[in-house]
Amino acid sequence: MKLSRLLRLQAAFYNQQERRLAASIKHMVGSKPFNLSLYKLAIKHYSMAEESINGLKISNERLEYLGDAILGAVVAEFLFIKFPYRDEGFLTETRSRMVNRETLNQIAVKIGLSKIIENEYKGKNLSAHKSIFGDTLEAMVGAVYLDRGYEFCKKFILKRIIIHYDVDGIITTTSNFKSKIIEWSQKENKEVDFRTVSVTGNQRFKEFHVQLFVEGELLSEGKGQTKKKAEQEASKNACEKLNIAV
Amino acid sequence: MKLSRLLRLQAAFYNQQERRLAASIKHMVGSKPFNLSLYKLAIKHYSMAEESINGLKISNERLEYLGDAILGAVVAEFLFIKFPYRDEGFLTETRSRMVNRETLNQIAVKIGLSKIIENEYKGKNLSAHKSIFGDTLEAMVGAVYLDRGYEFCKKFILKRIIIHYDVDGIITTTSNFKSKIIEWSQKENKEVDFRTVSVTGNQRFKEFHVQLFVEGELLSEGKGQTKKKAEQEASKNACEKLNIAV
Repeated sequence: MKLSRLLRLQAAFYNQQERRLAASIKHMVGSKPFNLSLYKLAIKHYSMAEESINGLKISNERLEYLGDAILGAVVAEFLFIKFPYRDEGFLTETRSRMVNRETLNQIAVKIGLSKIIENEYKGKNLSAHKSIFGDTLEAMVGAVYLDRGYEFCKKFILKRIIIHYDVDGIITTTSNFKSKIIEWSQKENKEVDFRTVSVTGNQRFKEFHVQLFVEGELLSEGKGQTKKKAEQEASKNACEKLNIAV
Repeated sequence: MKLSRLLRLQAAFYNQQERRLAASIKHMVGSKPFNLSLYKLAIKHYSMAEESINGLKISNERLEYLGDAILGAVVAEFLFIKFPYRDEGFLTETRSRMVNRETLNQIAVKIGLSKIIENEYKGKNLSAHKSIFGDTLEAMVGAVYLDRGYEFCKKFILKRIIIHYDVDGIITTTSNFKSKIIEWSQKENKEVDFRTVSVTGNQRFKEFHVQLFVEGELLSEGKGQTKKKAEQEASKNACEKLNIAV
């Protein structure tokens, strides 16, 4: 029997609150926790952390850092396999949309993690910290990883987190910055113009440099290996400058 | 016998070039490749990629995207375990230093990957693409991951990549932005002043807002949970504005 499994024997000595937490975790993760203290730590958001005697705050921030990295790797592979013909620019963009704070907050509510947190901080005002659910979801991934290893954690992410994503919804808003700009220009009745400033490189490796003009004035620039990529980049920068929701 | 192991039977049909590549990979990774085509793809840098009939370029960029994520996760855990008492700000900063392009370029030379690439593109000028070694190292991690799974890949990263890092050298230059600024001010004979503008939050959760003044003029700002973190953040922003190497 593995050492980690021995930790399960602790279950016999759980108090009521611990028993409730262990049951919730089992529900969410799909299997009883080996080392409950990891999960206890995972739900300690820094904004709620109590100061210990030596002035240190015990919080889930380190677990969040670890979980963020593991989640990133699993989502990266998920997209790599799901979209065998899409380039790395698309994959990177889609991944960053999938792991952004707002999306993770929503997922945390869907998988019931928000309930566990609300129960932990009963009577306290959580609304001041908008990202508490998303942060805790990452920390939870970190706890699952440390408790059960990569393969288990990967399955947890794929079957219990990614399943809640509207991946198609996410990708239709990915990498269509140019159409957002065109749409905006038609609505605002402004003339938008993409100009290729330079193409550098040789036959094998090219870099396009594109500038985006609105009503004849330079608004943004973009570079890329293809004209399309450079235009996308310029459009993305323009969306940011114009505060266009993407 | 796993399917992946069956791929090894291909070895009997390797041509000379493939035999050489397989031997180099074995040397570098520590074990013979199961699926050599992954590694062949990993050394196809986009700047050297030939266009296929349909206009698509076959290159290692997708593998690089995947490898980047896996490397990030393994390095994250490595630091998490190595520094049990450091906060997530330190860990994040150190990780980003460990996986930056310049560092990876150097590692690629140390583990001999640069030799494999030079051999592949014999007689071609590689110097135009500064990051070709680092990019390929990430792609190689992606190939190892797909070929052998997470645990093997983790071991490869820990024992064959991270071992070449001067981690202590990296951390002494991490999170000492404030001292960099003080140093700079003494050299340039300028007066530097940190002012705490506001402290928001309650007893449990505080946010400090610090401004950095040089000769009485506002240069940069920073926020953080402690005064120290806010000052570091402000100093980091100041280093960027002043182009101080960190």
